[in-house]
Amino acid sequence: MGEVSSMENIPSASYSMTLRAEFPHESGALGSILMAIGESGGLVGAVDIVRMRDGVTIRDITVNSRNSDHGRKIVDAVEELPDTRVINVSDRTFLMHLGGKIEIRSKHQIRTRDDLSMVYTPGVARVCRAIAEDPERAFNLTIKRNTVAVVTDGTAVLGLGDIGPSAAMPVMEGKAALFKQFADVDAFPICLDTTDTDEIVETVKRIAPGFGGINLEDISAPRCFEVERRLKEELEIPVFHDDQHGTAVVVLASLINALKVVGKNMEDLRVVICGVGAAGVACAKIIMAAGVRDLIGVDIHGIVHRDREQTDTSNGWFAENTNPEGRSGDLAAGVTGADLFVGVSAPGVLKVEHLDLMAEDPIVFAMANPEPEIHPEIAMGKVRIMATGRSDYPNQINNVLCFPGIFRGALDIRAREIDEPMKLAAAEAMAAAIPEEELVEDYIIPSVFDERVAPAVAEAVAEAGKKSGAARRIGQQSEVSMIGPQAF
Amino acid sequence: MGEVSSMENIPSASYSMTLRAEFPHESGALGSILMAIGESGGLVGAVDIVRMRDGVTIRDITVNSRNSDHGRKIVDAVEELPDTRVINVSDRTFLMHLGGKIEIRSKHQIRTRDDLSMVYTPGVARVCRAIAEDPERAFNLTIKRNTVAVVTDGTAVLGLGDIGPSAAMPVMEGKAALFKQFADVDAFPICLDTTDTDEIVETVKRIAPGFGGINLEDISAPRCFEVERRLKEELEIPVFHDDQHGTAVVVLASLINALKVVGKNMEDLRVVICGVGAAGVACAKIIMAAGVRDLIGVDIHGIVHRDREQTDTSNGWFAENTNPEGRSGDLAAGVTGADLFVGVSAPGVLKVEHLDLMAEDPIVFAMANPEPEIHPEIAMGKVRIMATGRSDYPNQINNVLCFPGIFRGALDIRAREIDEPMKLAAAEAMAAAIPEEELVEDYIIPSVFDERVAPAVAEAVAEAGKKSGAARRIGQQSEVSMIGPQAF
Repeated sequence: MGEVSSMENIPSASYSMTLRAEFPHESGALGSILMAIGESGGLVGAVDIVRMRDGVTIRDITVNSRNSDHGRKIVDAVEELPDTRVINVSDRTFLMHLGGKIEIRSKHQIRTRDDLSMVYTPGVARVCRAIAEDPERAFNLTIKRNTVAVVTDGTAVLGLGDIGPSAAMPVMEGKAALFKQFADVDAFPICLDTTDTDEIVETVKRIAPGFGGINLEDISAPRCFEVERRLKEELEIPVFHDDQHGTAVVVLASLINALKVVGKNMEDLRVVICGVGAAGVACAKIIMAAGVRDLIGVDIHGIVHRDREQTDTSNGWFAENTNPEGRSGDLAAGVTGADLFVGVSAPGVLKVEHLDLMAEDPIVFAMANPEPEIHPEIAMGKVRIMATGRSDYPNQINNVLCFPGIFRGALDIRAREIDEPMKLAAAEAMAAAIPEEELVEDYIIPSVFDERVAPAVAEAVAEAGKKSGAARRIGQQSEVSMIGPQAF
Repeated sequence: MGEVSSMENIPSASYSMTLRAEFPHESGALGSILMAIGESGGLVGAVDIVRMRDGVTIRDITVNSRNSDHGRKIVDAVEELPDTRVINVSDRTFLMHLGGKIEIRSKHQIRTRDDLSMVYTPGVARVCRAIAEDPERAFNLTIKRNTVAVVTDGTAVLGLGDIGPSAAMPVMEGKAALFKQFADVDAFPICLDTTDTDEIVETVKRIAPGFGGINLEDISAPRCFEVERRLKEELEIPVFHDDQHGTAVVVLASLINALKVVGKNMEDLRVVICGVGAAGVACAKIIMAAGVRDLIGVDIHGIVHRDREQTDTSNGWFAENTNPEGRSGDLAAGVTGADLFVGVSAPGVLKVEHLDLMAEDPIVFAMANPEPEIHPEIAMGKVRIMATGRSDYPNQINNVLCFPGIFRGALDIRAREIDEPMKLAAAEAMAAAIPEEELVEDYIIPSVFDERVAPAVAEAVAEAGKKSGAARRIGQQSEVSMIGPQAF
């Protein structure tokens, strides 16, 4: 895991460990340990006493490190101290994952025969019959109206690529945890043991009855386009490929606010999108829908243009819909004169030299995950506005700002789909969550912990869905009073 | 919904409603209402005050009724009282189902950037990589080790038959709630929009990576046999068709204890199984494995025997493996001289005249759901031991006694399957949960609320699985100390 370590320069909680150390109970001993950690570049957090007896002290010391190698070096430094022993090292991130991050709970305690006869047999039979008579009642009488499947095949997980369905689970569980925390949506991870487009589509269709929405996640291009297109056509619930549209919505929100800071207009902007996969296409589409005319895509072979041989459908989309001037060349040529760099590609591809080629007041959204196209420390001073996909730097372009609220809004109106007007409404509501007078270079995007965002997005999305016709449910019906006639 | 009402003679919570009534604030008014309810045969529970002003009182009165028709009659009786108005009637069972019965929760609060960077990006990437290197780590680092899919196609739901996947959801959610309540298992309902055997098998295989077990539920015979057989062969996690094996395990446990009460032996028993579907075959298999030799199956065409034309595979199984004397005839012929009647068929098929034909000290397990083959009130005095599938009578043969504990045991050892020794161990542990000196006619099966049952079943199942080789995990490893080396 050392391949990305040179990129990580700030000790962070994501590489945080708890050292259990045993050392003599004498003055200065703990101080020496903390000194050794500090000199190794580790950042000490909590220091807890485990035991103190027989002249020996055992303590748990929480330390943030830069990466795995750095963590190991800190442990070595402590172990080299005289009379000091490291009993155990536990990685706090791994500890949080033990046994998984989500659980399923019953909303009702089942303590008596009466409870059981209502929650389960025989009472439940009446509820089943009511739904069999009118399947739309599933929205009232089951978890459907609040439940989303987070579906992946594990082929494009974070920046890790095709790691398979089991290894994708921690991301999908994390996503489910965030759905709950930020928008009270019940989301459940479905990690598919197939990468075949037809099989993915079939499988999702077959498991759909219990769900009110499908969040597609980390499915690689170009299959993700067909999977999403077909599922949208064939299912009567929202299907949303978050890597495409979630990213695009947050990018547009960020761009709306960034332009207010630098004082430029959409119409005059020169934009380069690095990475022409699923997210790249979705970002290009929404940015162009917002008024940008001069936009090009760049991939590992350079600028995408009409005369280049197209290798996949997203490439083809860029060739046909972008680069009106027919430019060609490498990334350096692409960024020359650009106002905005949008990176949805790979770690470190944007070099500091590239920044010098950009237009005045350059804006860089470097969203490769977990390692951005260029690290903020490297870009500092060379760009006017910098955003990344990471939670440990300012201006985090994080889908967490989008998917909870957009699905909340869609579920609230029992939407049949999440359509274009709903996405644009989400971006506008997200941008507007920061009052204009508070906008500065380091604050163009609301914090993911900004509690105003998800409700504002949800409301805007629901309103847009009611206008567009995506909503099944327009008004608020009193459900309790509906229950009597159904049953009696 | 009146077709089964003649069978329901005791007002029960499963037909419980809350009447909101408005009436004059004068002495005797509430008394008249409660009198009217009582005279209509309703059973009054809680009486709450909603409002009291301007000489008018509004109260919520909770009433158990026998069935829907009866509920309506009670409401009519109250409305006929002078100056009394029923404002609203809400069915308590439906109220408990509003929005569904389960929810998904995050185990960790995500309140800070540090939390987010460990639960989600960038920290989660390291956990994903660790699983990609060794997929068995999914048992440690994801929800897999505690999570079961409750899978149905909605074709054989309770006694309701083929009501489809949406209408099956309340049962599957109830099951998930019970899994959690009784054995801390996280279970999630997967209701499939297909009834094709191949498609069910494919779909379950494709969604399997995130699950530690598959509980098949309410899939009709004969498809359920092939679905289970193929999934057991092709998946490396337990696959358990609860309608077959859960029922069979509880039936065997009940039979073990019933024979102690009546003083008969398995070897001498004459058994008739009414209903030769999935549950019938599983009950027959486990009863014969326990020593019974004289066993016949009866269906709508009468006793199943070798010379009868076989219509499906479960029928065929009965023809080939039971009825050694080659008997034939109708249900009356079948029950003549029988010591035990096991009903897994349809409401009301066992008549009171049939009971007179049985051997001395007859035992009747009438498990059709929600309406048994014969109601206990009708059978009273004619049978020595009576059990049903219902929660509102004594001796409830309920899978709730089996599935939480058997999956708990299987998950604890990360079992590859639930094999025959594990099922037999479950039945013996369940029977043994009642001390022999406490056994009486009305108490041969532990209460579903008996907290001793699930842990005892789980322990017996885990032990049996370790001996049989089904277990992946024999000892207890310290997981926390495993985490350090994985990460650093």
